[in-house]
Amino acid sequence: MMVLITYDVRTVTSTGQRRLRQVSKICQNYGQRVQNSVFECVVDAAQFTSLKLQLMDIIDQDEDSLRFYQLGNQYKNKVEHIGAKASLDVEGPLIF
Amino acid sequence: MMVLITYDVRTVTSTGQRRLRQVSKICQNYGQRVQNSVFECVVDAAQFTSLKLQLMDIIDQDEDSLRFYQLGNQYKNKVEHIGAKASLDVEGPLIF
Repeated sequence: MMVLITYDVRTVTSTGQRRLRQVSKICQNYGQRVQNSVFECVVDAAQFTSLKLQLMDIIDQDEDSLRFYQLGNQYKNKVEHIGAKASLDVEGPLIF
Repeated sequence: MMVLITYDVRTVTSTGQRRLRQVSKICQNYGQRVQNSVFECVVDAAQFTSLKLQLMDIIDQDEDSLRFYQLGNQYKNKVEHIGAKASLDVEGPLIF
């Protein structure tokens, strides 16, 4: 199934910036970045559980926000993209 | 149906910052902000079309990215949230 992951990580501190890098790195292990803080991951139930646990272990639940959207298997016709493709340079100029 | 809207707007210029504010404002007319650049909108087909056209009219398609995910009517059990709730202060400290 396809799971969409969106996140806000509060990066005003260096620990926040570290959390952001870690969240991004874990998501990259499971799927594809489509926007700066949006990933699409094709996973089975066990992988989804594992991914969630890893992310929950990293984020600061008082500061950061994680959302998961289960788009099922027939996801291709549910997604529409307009404009520029995902920036791969997340350390580059501010985009949000 | 519920439509999830995610966006990256390139804000290195003042015109980009203006586009970001406009995108956010239009999305607010149709739904609820759940993360800084993520909105959930409950719309019918006509509203969805109108919303898309308004957003396409604002963004710079070479610089910005818009994605729409149609989550259907049975969306409540497809969405999971962990951590802090949406920041309402989008002009506040950098969160992405």
